[in-house]
Amino acid sequence: RTLRIGLIPGDGIGKEVIPAGRRILEALPASLKLKFEFVDLKAGFETFEQTGAALPDKTVEILKNECDGALFGAVSSPSKAVKGYSSPIVALRKRLDLYANVRPVKSVMTAKNPIDMVIVRENTEDLYVKEERTYEAADGSKIAEAIKRISEKASFRIATMAGEIALRRQKIRESGAPSIHKSPMVTITHKSNVLSQTDGLFRATAREALAASKFSSVGVEEQIVDSMVYKLFRQPETYDVIVAPNLYGDILSDGAAALVGSLGLVPSANVGEGFAIGEPCHGSAPDIMGKNIANPIATLRSVALMLEFLNEETAAAKIYAAVDGNLEAGKLLSPDLGGTATTTEVVEDILRRL
Amino acid sequence: RTLRIGLIPGDGIGKEVIPAGRRILEALPASLKLKFEFVDLKAGFETFEQTGAALPDKTVEILKNECDGALFGAVSSPSKAVKGYSSPIVALRKRLDLYANVRPVKSVMTAKNPIDMVIVRENTEDLYVKEERTYEAADGSKIAEAIKRISEKASFRIATMAGEIALRRQKIRESGAPSIHKSPMVTITHKSNVLSQTDGLFRATAREALAASKFSSVGVEEQIVDSMVYKLFRQPETYDVIVAPNLYGDILSDGAAALVGSLGLVPSANVGEGFAIGEPCHGSAPDIMGKNIANPIATLRSVALMLEFLNEETAAAKIYAAVDGNLEAGKLLSPDLGGTATTTEVVEDILRRL
Ligand SMILES: CC(C)[C@H](C(=O)O)[C@@H](O)C(=O)O
Ligand SMILES: CC(C)[C@H](C(=O)O)[C@@H](O)C(=O)O
Repeated sequence: RTLRIGLIPGDGIGKEVIPAGRRILEALPASLKLKFEFVDLKAGFETFEQTGAALPDKTVEILKNECDGALFGAVSSPSKAVKGYSSPIVALRKRLDLYANVRPVKSVMTAKNPIDMVIVRENTEDLYVKEERTYEAADGSKIAEAIKRISEKASFRIATMAGEIALRRQKIRESGAPSIHKSPMVTITHKSNVLSQTDGLFRATAREALAASKFSSVGVEEQIVDSMVYKLFRQPETYDVIVAPNLYGDILSDGAAALVGSLGLVPSANVGEGFAIGEPCHGSAPDIMGKNIANPIATLRSVALMLEFLNEETAAAKIYAAVDGNLEAGKLLSPDLGGTATTTEVVEDILRRL
Repeated sequence: RTLRIGLIPGDGIGKEVIPAGRRILEALPASLKLKFEFVDLKAGFETFEQTGAALPDKTVEILKNECDGALFGAVSSPSKAVKGYSSPIVALRKRLDLYANVRPVKSVMTAKNPIDMVIVRENTEDLYVKEERTYEAADGSKIAEAIKRISEKASFRIATMAGEIALRRQKIRESGAPSIHKSPMVTITHKSNVLSQTDGLFRATAREALAASKFSSVGVEEQIVDSMVYKLFRQPETYDVIVAPNLYGDILSDGAAALVGSLGLVPSANVGEGFAIGEPCHGSAPDIMGKNIANPIATLRSVALMLEFLNEETAAAKIYAAVDGNLEAGKLLSPDLGGTATTTEVVEDILRRL
């Protein structure tokens, strides 16, 4: 099988980690019978400055018509509002209907307090519809409003995805993989005590989706988002799969990343029907760009996650194992993990372990 | 001076901790020349079930017309949506225009990694305006929308309050109180990379408010909310005052509470012009209600915080010191802190230290 992968480095350290993603795909053993072709694509703040568009139409079209999957690096947020600029990754998620943002947060099993959870974030609506308006109050002062939109459809499919991921994780556990969880569990996060209609709809629909008979072995519980953040830090080991509307998912996944020591370890995949874009959870990190010290692991794991959603689970498992090998050895770690290794050294150590 | 204080225990452990708040006010030394009168007031889910109103008009009127301040316990959120019920504390904040929710999160100075921050949460708008509607898509499926409203006025006054709190904290430090901070700093939290108009307005207005010459000694920085949650856990000691729109403030304060070991330690005050309601950050905790094991400290510190905003700083300082004495001694701690003391025992230990 030949997979055509779009490479969208974006800004800052995106340009250092996406090439690492390409290298690991090229280094996968021949026995897997997987070939890759790569297409370099543009998006980001630099692209905006050069072309006036943060997400050129061409990028979207090539992804849609020619690619099986893609890797996205990171984009810089301008430090002041810039007219006409808006985040290309948010636009990409919507234009390709990548409705799920899947973010596994996992420590190595040898960690003192191992954790192993996946945040399944709705990726197309909520406040991310970006429908905003500004008007003047009677006294001339400004008021701005944004729409938070929650639909039954999007809530149903994201909760279904969460249930399926819970089942898949259970299957992997049953095949003998070491795990801290005994049975599959989905935790629905919302704030329906304040937002009875929007988050209320998310909550009720997620419950309904997870009540399907195929999920009969999956436990279902709920946490209100503020208390979810509290519990995430007090008892992270109890969480298996967390499903959340877009913004809460965004916040929870950064919070969970703190638990494993660095955002530089946490991957994500933006997943739609038959298409997935791997994307490290970290940002463009302008403070360390160009120094070859960015942690490539979030990207390498995002490559694996993308492969999982393209049904190449064996290839994915090889990458995860190589990354875990590097972390467990603990010899060649990037500075965010307290080490002194360069990006290149970490990548090469992981390639050796493939 | 005689202060008339409304007591609103609400539901669950609210009924166990609010009486502790009353006891500490009554136990303040006579030398302070402070007298208290108390008015018992109703609100909460139980009140809703009895009377059909979660926040009876009479409660609001008595608070407005007769009281100088109040203590609010906690309210239960029904486990399923209940028609006509909505959170009385959210309504109370709006009806009394208690525009700031001030939440200090502080470990004792003898902690291994001491932290000392205040979250200043806007308390009247954002998604908490609760303007929601539900409609049907063309295919009959449901869609719900909520308004997130951010005004220049509310953003300006909350940022001003944050700046004033930063200055006040600096003054206390300069008077010799031990502290981990050298200079005052306000961190503005937002998500303007996605919500350019609403959070953009919050960000720009907060910057403007904090640029006032009276705040020239106050450092100002920004964090995007997801990265704020990450940093809160990675380097909490760096934060002094955090100012945030309503929902982010809600989430951040629960997150920060996790850092000090228990929500049972974290107080808040809902503050308006000349009025303050002290309110523990924890909920009604139905799982432990009636057992006399709830941690009263969040409430006792909320009493102190309320007194601060009623300009009774000396009385407040006495309560804080007595609570810190109990925590530093570490002998009589409630179960959430790993101890075995009852609510009553903790309260009595703290009263002895007054
Ligand atoms: C850059 C930003 C628009 C984005 C988001 O909020 O989704 C980022 O935080 C993420 O989590 O991928
Ligand atoms: C109970 C709930 C409505 C409330 C809020 O969201 O404000 C609570 O979480 C709080 O922080 O006081």
